[in-house]
Formats: sequence, C-alpha cells, structure tokens
Amino acid sequence: MSSLERFWAVVPAGGAGTRLWPLSRAASPKFLHDLTGSGRSLLQETLDRLQPLVGDRVLVVTGQVHEAAVREQLPGLPTDQLVAEPSPRDSMAAIGLAAALLERRDPHALLGSFAADHVIEDADAFRTCVEAAVDVAEQGFVVTIGIEPTHPATGFGYIKLGKPIGNGPGRVVDQFVEKPDAGRAAEYIASGEFRWNAGMFVVRAAVLLDLLATWHPELAAGLRAIAADPESLAERWPGLERIAIDHAVAEPAAEAGRVAVVPGDFRWDDVGDFHSLASLLPDAEPASGIKVLGDATLVESLDSTGVVIPAAGRTVAVVGLEDVVVVDTGDALLVTTRQRAQDVKAIVDILKATGRGHLT
Amino acid sequence: MSSLERFWAVVPAGGAGTRLWPLSRAASPKFLHDLTGSGRSLLQETLDRLQPLVGDRVLVVTGQVHEAAVREQLPGLPTDQLVAEPSPRDSMAAIGLAAALLERRDPHALLGSFAADHVIEDADAFRTCVEAAVDVAEQGFVVTIGIEPTHPATGFGYIKLGKPIGNGPGRVVDQFVEKPDAGRAAEYIASGEFRWNAGMFVVRAAVLLDLLATWHPELAAGLRAIAADPESLAERWPGLERIAIDHAVAEPAAEAGRVAVVPGDFRWDDVGDFHSLASLLPDAEPASGIKVLGDATLVESLDSTGVVIPAAGRTVAVVGLEDVVVVDTGDALLVTTRQRAQDVKAIVDILKATGRGHLT
Repeated sequence: MSSLERFWAVVPAGGAGTRLWPLSRAASPKFLHDLTGSGRSLLQETLDRLQPLVGDRVLVVTGQVHEAAVREQLPGLPTDQLVAEPSPRDSMAAIGLAAALLERRDPHALLGSFAADHVIEDADAFRTCVEAAVDVAEQGFVVTIGIEPTHPATGFGYIKLGKPIGNGPGRVVDQFVEKPDAGRAAEYIASGEFRWNAGMFVVRAAVLLDLLATWHPELAAGLRAIAADPESLAERWPGLERIAIDHAVAEPAAEAGRVAVVPGDFRWDDVGDFHSLASLLPDAEPASGIKVLGDATLVESLDSTGVVIPAAGRTVAVVGLEDVVVVDTGDALLVTTRQRAQDVKAIVDILKATGRGHLT
Repeated sequence: MSSLERFWAVVPAGGAGTRLWPLSRAASPKFLHDLTGSGRSLLQETLDRLQPLVGDRVLVVTGQVHEAAVREQLPGLPTDQLVAEPSPRDSMAAIGLAAALLERRDPHALLGSFAADHVIEDADAFRTCVEAAVDVAEQGFVVTIGIEPTHPATGFGYIKLGKPIGNGPGRVVDQFVEKPDAGRAAEYIASGEFRWNAGMFVVRAAVLLDLLATWHPELAAGLRAIAADPESLAERWPGLERIAIDHAVAEPAAEAGRVAVVPGDFRWDDVGDFHSLASLLPDAEPASGIKVLGDATLVESLDSTGVVIPAAGRTVAVVGLEDVVVVDTGDALLVTTRQRAQDVKAIVDILKATGRGHLT
C-alpha cells in the first residue's frame, strides 16, 4: 500500500470566527457559512478539496453542539468519521484524538490536519503540495505547509526555512515565529527565508502521538485510552490538557529538528475578518465598487466601495461610502469599514458583557 | 367674534419625503412618522401645536390613500374635518378646497395653512407669531411667516422684506426668491432683509379665493363649486389645474403688494433629509457621537458619529464611521453619510426604474 493510500484527512471544525460577526455566531460558526459565494460552506469546500486525494478517508472533529449541523452539510460522511468533542479542549486534543483513532485503525496511518474554515484558491496546487508533504512525513517528520507570502502580513505566524531534506521540496523548519510587527514582516519577506504558517500539519499518526508523549505524556496517554475505549470519551475528555498543537508538539519538535516544511504556492487565507473576506470576493458584475456576498440583486450602491452581505434577504442601499462593510442578518446589522474590520470583536465583547450574548 | 375665533388651521398632509427613504414611503409618508423621537408623528405634533390656538377648528387635507392612516393617528378629528383628495393635484387645489369649504361655513373665516411634515421647536413663539399673522390677514393680506435665518441655507426659498405695515410686526413682501446658491444665500443673510419662506400662509378664505379667481378663474370656480356640492368632488377634482399655491397666488399677489410677512423667531425645519433629521435629534445619553431615532438600546457604536434609526427592532452595530446614516427597516436598509443625504433620492429613482417600486 502506498503512503497516500494510508493517508487520512483530519478536519478540525471549530472556532467561532468572532471578527466575522454577525454572520458568524457561536451557534453557527464561520466554517458552516459560504464565505466565498461558491454556494458551498467553508467546511464543504474543505472536504471537496481533499476528496480527490483521500476519497472517503476523512475524519471531521467538531464540537457536540455543531454535530447536527455538520452532519447536515456532509450527508455522505460515515457516522463513525465524525468525532464530536464534548467541549472545546483546543487543537492538540482535537487532532490528537483523531490521530489516536487512526493509529488504532492502522499503526502506519498518516494524517493531514486541515482547518475547516480556511480558503484555498488553487486546489490542484494544494493537493500536489500535500502529496509532497506525505512523502516527507513518511520519513518521520512533522510536516507543515509554508505558504509563499504575497505581502508582509502581520496577521499570520511565519516559518523560518532550514536546510533542505534530500532532493525533494522539503526543508527542515528552523523556527516558528509568532505574528510579527510590520517592520519584521517586511524583513522576513525580503530575506526570502520565511513562509506563512497556514497551520496545516501532515504526519504519521504514531509519530505525532509519540512526540506528544515526550512533552505531554498524560495527554498522549489519555487520547490513546479514549481511542482504545471510545465509550470513555465523556469521562476522560474534561481531564485532558488544553493546549494548541503548535505549542504542544510543533515548536518543541522544531527545536529537536523533527519538523519539515513543504512550500505551498497557492493562495491561502484564513478569512479572519471582513477585510480579508472582501479581498477574496470577485468584483461585482457590472463593476460597482461594491462586492456582494449573497444575492447581488438586493444591493444598490452609488459612489461606494467595499462589501455588502445581504444575508437577511432585504434590499440594501449604500451611498457615498468608501471601503464600507455592511453585514445584514435577521437579528443584527453591522456597519463598519475594511480598515476597522479587526474591531468587530470589540462589539461582540460589548454585547456579551451587556446581556446580549444571544446575539453573538 | 374675534378674528382668532374665526381662524381655522388647514393642514395639508402630503408629500412622499423621498429623501427620507426607506423610513418614509409612498404608502407611509413622512408626516405619519415620529421623526423627532417625541413619540408623536409629525402630523400629530402639528395638530398638538395648533390646538391651543384653534381648538377643534382644524381641516386636514390628505390623499384618499392615506385617509385611514390619518384617521387612526387623529381619532379626535371630526369626520367632516378630514378632506380626502381623490388624487394629488398640488397645493393650490388642496388649500383652495379647504378655503372654499370654510368660506361656506363662514364668509368671514380666516385660515392658516401649516404643512403636516415640518418641525417647529418653540410652540409658544410659533403661536404668538400666528396670532400676529391673523391680525395682518384680517386687513386683507396673504400673510406668510418669515423664519429668522440661522445660516445661509441653500435648501429653502427666501422672502425679501418690504415696508412695514402700520405699527405691528408685519412687513409687505417685496419679493419671493427661489432657493439660492451658497454665495447669494450668504448675501441674503448679511443684508438682514431676508427671511426663510416656511411655506405657511395665513389669509381670509374669501381673499385667497378672490385672488385665485383673478389669475386662475377656472380653478377658483371649480373649488367653490365642489364646496357648494361636495358630492361633485370625484367628478370635478381630476379637471382642476395642478399648481402650487406659491405660483398660483403668493407670487402674483406679492407683485400686487398684497402679501405680508410676519417674522418667526422659532426654530423651524422641513426635515427634508437625514442630515437635517440628525441635526434635530438630541445627543445620545451617554454621548457616543451617534444619535438614535428609536430604541437606543438597540444601537452599539465605537468611534463613530452620525445617526442610526433602528426601525426594524434589530441590533445595529457601527464601528469607525464618521457622520454615518444608517436606516434599518423591515424590508430595506440604507447606509450613507449626512453629506450625501440628498442623494438618497437617486436610490429611490433606481428602485422605481428597476421594478422595485414596492420598496419606495
């Protein structure tokens, strides 16, 4: 059996997408929405993109509160390939549980973890890149995908490239660096030695769990125990350590020279806010300056640029505003600018603090 | 009987208020709305303001399409004091019909015409002014009220003051001038010889109709014939000339020295657009920079100024916008700026031209 035939996609479907309020809500988060105008949710697009690579070998990990919505969006997903977490315990527990389940199915299984709420524009290039990552992962590395930066973004973490691995495209990861300020981001781009960290990991399931066992033995043991006895999930889950996979494994493993990076030359975005959502949408036809996510016939604009999301089905008219963001939903309306897109979180915080958490 | 005891208020309730879309609609025009946050519609406020002066001596003239809504808002208005026009025939027919009906009740009746969709802030000063106008009207003049200008407005017509009438506050009107450009408006203000034309007329009913008969004999005769036989309204109405009272009577009568002006030193506004609506609203408490017409608890704002009208009952969040105008209704949403408030009409025109007239 080839490496690729033992390769599974793990899709963590979580994250509230607070800065995409009021479109994204705790009860109906970002990954359940069509944010590109494709007619498919981000979750559905993620699985569509992986299917040619993995066929039915997909595990989706989501919260129990979203289990029904995920099943509705993915009617073809076998029942036992949806893992429902009793409560959020961060990414290491989510991906680690998937790894433990796969390890029991096949001790030689490989997995790739791909968030359900990112956008990738060139699916062919993505799959070619993942295939290369699988080859490197088979050699025992934790393999990340390093996106070729297009601008000195301050909203992403970066990966510093180390020495090449054999004759393939893989490089050892020298270092993971946190979101930089604008000056350092510009230096990173100029050096040519940095990639965006898209948070994707390709690794043998047993390697991931063994590395985890080195630094977080209780967590690794707990996850393997749940995989051995799935009935114990509810009992064991709340006791697991809350930690991100980056801190639990990727960063210490990089120090140990166990992490590799494979370059990804496709457009990738985590659609973190309405500014990046707007940049992913095509121009309106005929071009009006206003991009529309949804039914463009509902939107009339005059001397305006920006993005309108008429999700409530009502007519929206915009006159004389630059880079405006209008998000119209059934119970809440947001009006801001692309420049202030990050501050949407502050509104969500205010609503929560003033007894209107039901809107968030 | 004193002049004041023979004085009736005539309230033309018409005008779509297009630049106040989507709040004001053809089917639910401006005068039916509370635009000041008082809890009363402009129509109700107009009658409240007149009541101490005229008691029950009020005639409301509106279109048949608005008759039911007007009766609902004015439950105390006697049935025969609401005149319902079969179709819009401009202000001369509306006010002239009221004059003809009053002339038949009392050949010595006086009337004052006060639009149902204007805002006046100092009701006592307004009534004092109207009382002075009634005195001057008793002498045979058509009397207008000239508002003391507070700034060189380009959105109002002006009245040029002529020689004083006796020892009272009245002056002969030298000339009516159309909406000026900014330069001329500034000259008018500097001269001290100009007043804003608020479109209010106080006059003896018979004088108005006799003057009308001089320049538009068929219209005057038609209106008197309807008053003599109200059953003939539907038949005669469509044949009446469509003309504004300004052109039909006020301007030619001013040339003939028959028009007077009484100064009004109260704040008056025709609430023509959201810019002026915003300037009439009190500051939010606590001051946030955003004024709210409606339920202020629905509005959250951050680093923003302007006005929000949450008429759909939904939460509205505004972040980082200056002088913004957000009007949220059940089936349509407008987002613009105070500076562009005049251009709301263009959106209404587009909606009408593209088969969405039901929204206007």
